[in-house]
Amino acid sequence: MPLRLAILASGNGSNAQAMISAMQAGTLHIEIPLIASNNPKAYVLTRAEKAGIPTYAFDHRDFKDRESCDRAIVARIREANCDAVALAGYMRLLSHTFLTEFGGPVLNLHPALLPSFPGLHGARDALAYGVTITGATVHFVDEKMDNGPIIIQAAIPIRPNESEDELLSRIHALEHRIYPQAIEWLAQGRLVRKGRIVTLTGKGKPGIQPESALISPELEEGM
Amino acid sequence: MPLRLAILASGNGSNAQAMISAMQAGTLHIEIPLIASNNPKAYVLTRAEKAGIPTYAFDHRDFKDRESCDRAIVARIREANCDAVALAGYMRLLSHTFLTEFGGPVLNLHPALLPSFPGLHGARDALAYGVTITGATVHFVDEKMDNGPIIIQAAIPIRPNESEDELLSRIHALEHRIYPQAIEWLAQGRLVRKGRIVTLTGKGKPGIQPESALISPELEEGM
Repeated sequence: MPLRLAILASGNGSNAQAMISAMQAGTLHIEIPLIASNNPKAYVLTRAEKAGIPTYAFDHRDFKDRESCDRAIVARIREANCDAVALAGYMRLLSHTFLTEFGGPVLNLHPALLPSFPGLHGARDALAYGVTITGATVHFVDEKMDNGPIIIQAAIPIRPNESEDELLSRIHALEHRIYPQAIEWLAQGRLVRKGRIVTLTGKGKPGIQPESALISPELEEGM
Repeated sequence: MPLRLAILASGNGSNAQAMISAMQAGTLHIEIPLIASNNPKAYVLTRAEKAGIPTYAFDHRDFKDRESCDRAIVARIREANCDAVALAGYMRLLSHTFLTEFGGPVLNLHPALLPSFPGLHGARDALAYGVTITGATVHFVDEKMDNGPIIIQAAIPIRPNESEDELLSRIHALEHRIYPQAIEWLAQGRLVRKGRIVTLTGKGKPGIQPESALISPELEEGM
């Protein structure tokens, strides 16, 4: 049985699209039974509809508190029989209630090499600090923001005088490769967590290391 | 006139050796008129003597406080007509007095991708956190530990089940390449600081990007 993944997103949904495309191309062996958004106008919902994926749009202001909102989302995720959740530009912190009531793995990504530059502006903060290398991180979600065990990271050099938009666009391009890879590993049951350490077990396809980025663990063929 | 660089080190001095070797090989166009150590038994002093470089060994317990110790070091650095200082495994925080009385650029390196994992155990802390990419950083020194403007960083993947010793040894190998490069850029007058941002100006030799590390800005030929 393939992994059944719910995606939560608040905006454009380019990472959701990367997963949909990888699934359609047969490199990501999952089903996506639900895409949910707290923003009824989010373009990610249009992407879902184009791919024939059921959606759940809600307005968190319709709920009396974060917990009741999160309970309603978890109820939808369970109705759709999902085993795992991927946050893809989901701009709300998940409550303790969400994580305990859902119980399964929840993944997120961040546009920086965590633990550097957590928070809402990973790329902007990296530019302001003056690092010369930044990147992207896919991690398991726990109750602290941008804190959970790390699955995969990708590093790129910051270019001289690079704008936030240019940098973010290169980081997004990396995310679209490493996030499907992390989910494929999860779907294959190859990610073993022990405390903060995530080990990639089993044997995959031969690794590739793209020229312009250092990605660790290495991407496998087709990703 | 080549840059005259003083090196401060507390231990084995492998980074000092990298600079000495690059200078002797003619890839690093500087003079090293002084190597100072707060540890009279440090092997870096033997390296200096082998290379014919004057040394200054002191015991900080012979001084009444940090400021008077730092003043004595700065006096030696000035006597030796040094323009810049490189910390190479120097295990003491420089005082405000050192930085203001010396006045010239002071460089340091750190075995992690700052601002991640500052402090005494950059590699150990990276392993404990579970990042999959770490690296090394060369930066200008300011009064906060591991905080100054960044000149160059190098990123490497952490290997599965890697020990702290294995990781540190790979990080040191990177440091021995990026630290001489940073000093060569300084010697060429090509590093322009504006706030936290360091810009590499002018035109260098064609860049190279080693296979197993992502280094930004790229190393130039011969480094």
